[in-house]
Amino acid sequence: MLENSVFLRACRKEPTEYTPIWLMRQAGRYLKEYRNIRKKFDFLTMCKIPDLAAEITLQPVEQLGVDAAIIFSDILLPLEKMGIRLEYSQGDGPKIHNPVRTEKEIESLRIIEPEEDLPFVLEAIKKVSKELNGKLPLIGFAGGPFTMASYIIEGSHTRNFIKTKKLMYHNSDYWHLLMKKLSEVTVRYLNAQIRSGVQAIQLFDSWIGYLNPKDYADFVLPHSNYVFSEIEKGIPTIHFATGSSALLKLMQKAGGNVIGIDWRIDLGEAWKHLEYKVGIQGNLDPVTLFAPLPILKNRIKEILASADNRNGHIFNLGHGILPRTPVKNVIALVETVHEFSQR
Amino acid sequence: MLENSVFLRACRKEPTEYTPIWLMRQAGRYLKEYRNIRKKFDFLTMCKIPDLAAEITLQPVEQLGVDAAIIFSDILLPLEKMGIRLEYSQGDGPKIHNPVRTEKEIESLRIIEPEEDLPFVLEAIKKVSKELNGKLPLIGFAGGPFTMASYIIEGSHTRNFIKTKKLMYHNSDYWHLLMKKLSEVTVRYLNAQIRSGVQAIQLFDSWIGYLNPKDYADFVLPHSNYVFSEIEKGIPTIHFATGSSALLKLMQKAGGNVIGIDWRIDLGEAWKHLEYKVGIQGNLDPVTLFAPLPILKNRIKEILASADNRNGHIFNLGHGILPRTPVKNVIALVETVHEFSQR
Repeated sequence: MLENSVFLRACRKEPTEYTPIWLMRQAGRYLKEYRNIRKKFDFLTMCKIPDLAAEITLQPVEQLGVDAAIIFSDILLPLEKMGIRLEYSQGDGPKIHNPVRTEKEIESLRIIEPEEDLPFVLEAIKKVSKELNGKLPLIGFAGGPFTMASYIIEGSHTRNFIKTKKLMYHNSDYWHLLMKKLSEVTVRYLNAQIRSGVQAIQLFDSWIGYLNPKDYADFVLPHSNYVFSEIEKGIPTIHFATGSSALLKLMQKAGGNVIGIDWRIDLGEAWKHLEYKVGIQGNLDPVTLFAPLPILKNRIKEILASADNRNGHIFNLGHGILPRTPVKNVIALVETVHEFSQR
Repeated sequence: MLENSVFLRACRKEPTEYTPIWLMRQAGRYLKEYRNIRKKFDFLTMCKIPDLAAEITLQPVEQLGVDAAIIFSDILLPLEKMGIRLEYSQGDGPKIHNPVRTEKEIESLRIIEPEEDLPFVLEAIKKVSKELNGKLPLIGFAGGPFTMASYIIEGSHTRNFIKTKKLMYHNSDYWHLLMKKLSEVTVRYLNAQIRSGVQAIQLFDSWIGYLNPKDYADFVLPHSNYVFSEIEKGIPTIHFATGSSALLKLMQKAGGNVIGIDWRIDLGEAWKHLEYKVGIQGNLDPVTLFAPLPILKNRIKEILASADNRNGHIFNLGHGILPRTPVKNVIALVETVHEFSQR
């Protein structure tokens, strides 16, 4: 029974025989099987052909022995049907050809209908569910409202988020309108993924760590709170961000049964800060996967010790697996977490 | 008397009539006067001609009304004489042509003699001191050992610090040798600045926020601790980093009379975490300087309220002033801090 899987029990803070683990970007560029497909198709095509997306989703599942699958997709996909022209160029990260900054541009953004606009994602979810055949839970996901907003405002990678914050400070009415539109899209998209068969969802609000706590509370929290409040009840939710060591309590207030942290904070300290009221996910530095095995294993032991056998810890990295990560270390990571966390 | 300046008293946690303020990169690209010089000289030349460096240092002092000057220079300058070939290309940030990764490369790094190797910095300090004529304290600075190490190992901007952490994990003996060499250089360099006339120093260990607390404690803390322990006694020290919300107590353990924080954490919360045992510097988001004046002023008020009139708060940004920051807002910032913090 999927409901009794280690991963879903941990999401609900129920006792488990060992600590479950899955990895952000577990289906990704570090895998030879993934690179072989990538040679033939561009990134967006890989997301849009359900057979391919399903195949890629499943690539790491058996190979790594993880406790959950996550649908292969990208947080920016819903933007296209909102009216955004997206491009994924090799190496540089996503580029947006018509960044949204004016009132008119914000008003013209379309609210999507996932079943019509993103059928390929939902189709891929159905295919993966069928393949997994009740043996492993499948996670759906979407980008958080601030992260999505900053992508479409900045248009490409930024270190300072000046344009994003300028809109926030100079035209807060339109900022909130943009956030409302993105939140509505996210709610519809996540609920459609749930209807198609995912058993849990993760909201990636990866870039909120660039905000001071006051701005997060004023400009973002009400919107991510809306997203969590509108997710189909009974489906576990994970709220993830990086650089958010000082935002954890506010993230908890916004929502999520589990808070996903990066590696910049001791996991036990973070959890204590949250008064153990929610589950916690994390928190190995992805770069530790490049370390010699004894150092990697030692670090895993430290994280597990920091979680102190409490119910509700899901092991993960603090951010996505990096390209060129040695696969054998990823396999060793999963094995070691399972072995060292036996209750 | 300089010793009684508001800035130095705040460094010592003594009472002041108002909260002192200076700004990281207050001599920088947002100033027309700076850009005029930059048109004629490349960045390294601006650092190396004492008359120019002194002029640039003084540009913001009267214009802004700040409570301290900071010598115009760059944290990477000592590297050249250690054997590193540096280049500052416009826009891209510094580039290093011979990154240091092997044992041999680490062994061949030279320990500098500041008086012989960086006479221009010391000369510029003397010129500025003379100009300031006891009216305003002058701050000297250097890069922290982790930040310097990561620059010379990576060779250019990085988001993941993979090469740096690989050296740390795979060859910790040589990592520590490299850190020892960099720390020794930093001690010599800072003490030479003190002998030349600076009244306080700041250690910029800007990138430690990319480390998990355990790695910071094992691989960095002993070295920055050595730096602080070897600084000429009686000279106030500021220990600055970004993204370090969860490292503050460890930074305090490493040293510094004042801990410099970014904007990602509430200042009052950070200070409480440090049990008010040290001074605190910060913490306005540099992007808030692009906001409308009422929003900027409101944020300043919130930060001052968070500091709660305790002795030992030095107002600053959470990171350097950004290019294109409106000068009138910077002036308003300094005025507002002085006005709102009158005791």
